[in-house]
Amino acid sequence: MTTWSSGAFTFAEGYLNASTIPAMEIGVGILGGGTVGGELARRMLEDREAILAKSGIDLRLRAVAVRELDKPRLFPSRYIVDRPDLVVSHPEVDLVVELMGGVDPAREMVLSALDLGKPVITANKELLSLHGPELFARAAAKGVSLLFEAAVGGGIPLIRPLSESLAGERIERVMGIVNGTTNFILTAMDSEGIPYQEALADAQRLGYAEANPTADVSGSDAAAKAAILAGLAFGRWVSIEQVHTEGIADLASQDLGFARQLGYTIKLLAVAETSPHGPAVRVHPALVPADHPLALIRGANNGVFLEGPSIGELLFLGPGAGGEPTATAVLGDVILASREFLAGTKVAPRVRFGNGDVRDFSEVETQWYLRLEVRDRPGVLARIAAVFGIHEVSIMSVWQDGRGDYATLLLVTHHARETNHRAAVKDLEALEVVRQVAATIRVVGAGP
Amino acid sequence: MTTWSSGAFTFAEGYLNASTIPAMEIGVGILGGGTVGGELARRMLEDREAILAKSGIDLRLRAVAVRELDKPRLFPSRYIVDRPDLVVSHPEVDLVVELMGGVDPAREMVLSALDLGKPVITANKELLSLHGPELFARAAAKGVSLLFEAAVGGGIPLIRPLSESLAGERIERVMGIVNGTTNFILTAMDSEGIPYQEALADAQRLGYAEANPTADVSGSDAAAKAAILAGLAFGRWVSIEQVHTEGIADLASQDLGFARQLGYTIKLLAVAETSPHGPAVRVHPALVPADHPLALIRGANNGVFLEGPSIGELLFLGPGAGGEPTATAVLGDVILASREFLAGTKVAPRVRFGNGDVRDFSEVETQWYLRLEVRDRPGVLARIAAVFGIHEVSIMSVWQDGRGDYATLLLVTHHARETNHRAAVKDLEALEVVRQVAATIRVVGAGP
Repeated sequence: MTTWSSGAFTFAEGYLNASTIPAMEIGVGILGGGTVGGELARRMLEDREAILAKSGIDLRLRAVAVRELDKPRLFPSRYIVDRPDLVVSHPEVDLVVELMGGVDPAREMVLSALDLGKPVITANKELLSLHGPELFARAAAKGVSLLFEAAVGGGIPLIRPLSESLAGERIERVMGIVNGTTNFILTAMDSEGIPYQEALADAQRLGYAEANPTADVSGSDAAAKAAILAGLAFGRWVSIEQVHTEGIADLASQDLGFARQLGYTIKLLAVAETSPHGPAVRVHPALVPADHPLALIRGANNGVFLEGPSIGELLFLGPGAGGEPTATAVLGDVILASREFLAGTKVAPRVRFGNGDVRDFSEVETQWYLRLEVRDRPGVLARIAAVFGIHEVSIMSVWQDGRGDYATLLLVTHHARETNHRAAVKDLEALEVVRQVAATIRVVGAGP
Repeated sequence: MTTWSSGAFTFAEGYLNASTIPAMEIGVGILGGGTVGGELARRMLEDREAILAKSGIDLRLRAVAVRELDKPRLFPSRYIVDRPDLVVSHPEVDLVVELMGGVDPAREMVLSALDLGKPVITANKELLSLHGPELFARAAAKGVSLLFEAAVGGGIPLIRPLSESLAGERIERVMGIVNGTTNFILTAMDSEGIPYQEALADAQRLGYAEANPTADVSGSDAAAKAAILAGLAFGRWVSIEQVHTEGIADLASQDLGFARQLGYTIKLLAVAETSPHGPAVRVHPALVPADHPLALIRGANNGVFLEGPSIGELLFLGPGAGGEPTATAVLGDVILASREFLAGTKVAPRVRFGNGDVRDFSEVETQWYLRLEVRDRPGVLARIAAVFGIHEVSIMSVWQDGRGDYATLLLVTHHARETNHRAAVKDLEALEVVRQVAATIRVVGAGP
């Protein structure tokens, strides 16, 4: 490692010329040699000169810890080691990149690296959403960087804009699509009219979904990301257990079809909002108006709105997953952490977290789409409307599909509290004229 | 100023608790008390506690230098001084925000502040695009931060994502709408079918255009921004003189109408591309397909694509101008520069600039839309097509509008070199059957 020294600058014709500035070398160890780790190692080796010219940082790959020693890799095998702890403690590793995923042994490895005064870059949203406060406190105590741009939004810069560019804004809402797998599945269901299981199988065959897709389709991956975004946005750490989470496995393709007929698209949204009662963070499928920018995000892409009183609305769109975009985000963090590390002083944490309540989810208000199977006879709508009225849920619009003994009734309500909606659904199900409340899905972005 | 010390951290329940961390105080001086400077001063005063809680930085406003002493302001008059040099040299001003605009005396003030070891935040794209290398070299020599997020894209974080998050990416193209005034005018011309002069007058009445709109409508504001983005993207500083610049003042509203009929919208685009022959940077009106994301950016909003081999496409959208969004971007920089300043060491520059050529604009290839007034008789199209053929410009599609002695012919070409296009236009004008080449506008984003 070469310590930064400003006296070494020279200037040709007033320019900051890359060739005249001494390189600042930094040894990097990577934990995990999979899709992202392998790509990162390859980029560090192949783009070393280009990165040096642009950033002044000479990234030297030292070792990559992998689980299976004999798999083909994107980088030479001489970098491979089989024990992550040896990478962390390696005397020539100045900086550690954690791409193992999961909590164990990732948590222990990150803490060890921080304890050794080594900056850590991680893309591990699960680890952060479960142990963020512990890790941030350790990094702050040691005065080293702990960066995690790749943990949310894949290649889209979200963490740094939120925690730095908007450090002076009172962020009120963060909303978007933060899981590429489910967006790929929903896009296929919507555009090809295929059922969930078929779309999931396609996604698995094409590598967009894992063999065990639970973390994605249950919404828990998106919930971890929503918790991280909420923590940074509101300066109050939110744990994943505090995120109300619903997945997409129960969505019926006919509801995507009805939604389209009504002018909506169904997306899995992450929504984090402030309120006087604390932040409310939730992940659930939602009908989004077809001309809403989030409705235009297709396939494995992600897109996130950041909203505040001064900034209005910012929207960031891009590839939400994949080895190459994610490795790019990690590499940006590696370069920044190197700059901070080479400055040789303690690094102050970017965001602090206050305490306070999280809002009771039952208080949250949204619009709803409901699909009811009802007896097709006069007076039915009046009885249904009466139930909504009792629970102070007001109906915005109603469509009837099909005639016969039974008809399908589609309703979109105005904003209603979660508790009121649930009570109305319970009473609807008890109505003799209602055969089934077949679907209830939130509606987001459709105006007041 | 309180120097940062990590020993002062305490942790309640493992949390980084804002209330237990000592404040890091920093004195701020603002040069310019107009729309952005006034809003910044107001925010620093009103949001001081909130910013401190979230960032740990206690921003103390010391003075605001203004040109006219007796105008109403968004902040108390006790902060007002009439000499910017006194703000810069004020012993309690640790950090200087330059929001005066223009080159003189802004350049001198920024250099003085840097010489005094004070970090500088500026939103002055003109100053940066003309004197960037000198200013960056001075900041690097002194080891202090020189940040300028607000210089491009108003409230949209672009500078930091480009120079930090994507530091490890080989950016190939930066393209977008970076001037809110012209986008407001073009949106009005397009949606209301009004001529340029009327749309400009509306924009002036509503405060979206200045009394002297030249910098905006000539494209020179966008050119300065394009030069800055290109420099950061490609690691090779581009001066504003090297940007090929065309404005919107000559656009006829009928071309917006024809464009719409053909499925396009006309936007003022900034495009910076790499090539083996160096970067090519240009600002000009362009037909954009109506379903292209840039076509959806309306009013005073901005939107920029960042493209590279690993990242694919990233798109950032948001408010491109206005006091509140721009002040938010400045405030983010103030907080970051404060962190860096309080660390007490030299700050390494984020991006270095290499040397090299800028690509000859005549070599750049684009598609073209042409509107020709031609004699309406058999054989005309054949003669016109022959001229294009001679100059190796291939026609993608042709429409004829109106019949009579003269007809309007609309053509869209495939990609053609600038020189070939110009030669073809010259020869077309010499054709007896062509009364006038009434308009030639580039087409961007319409595929290969």
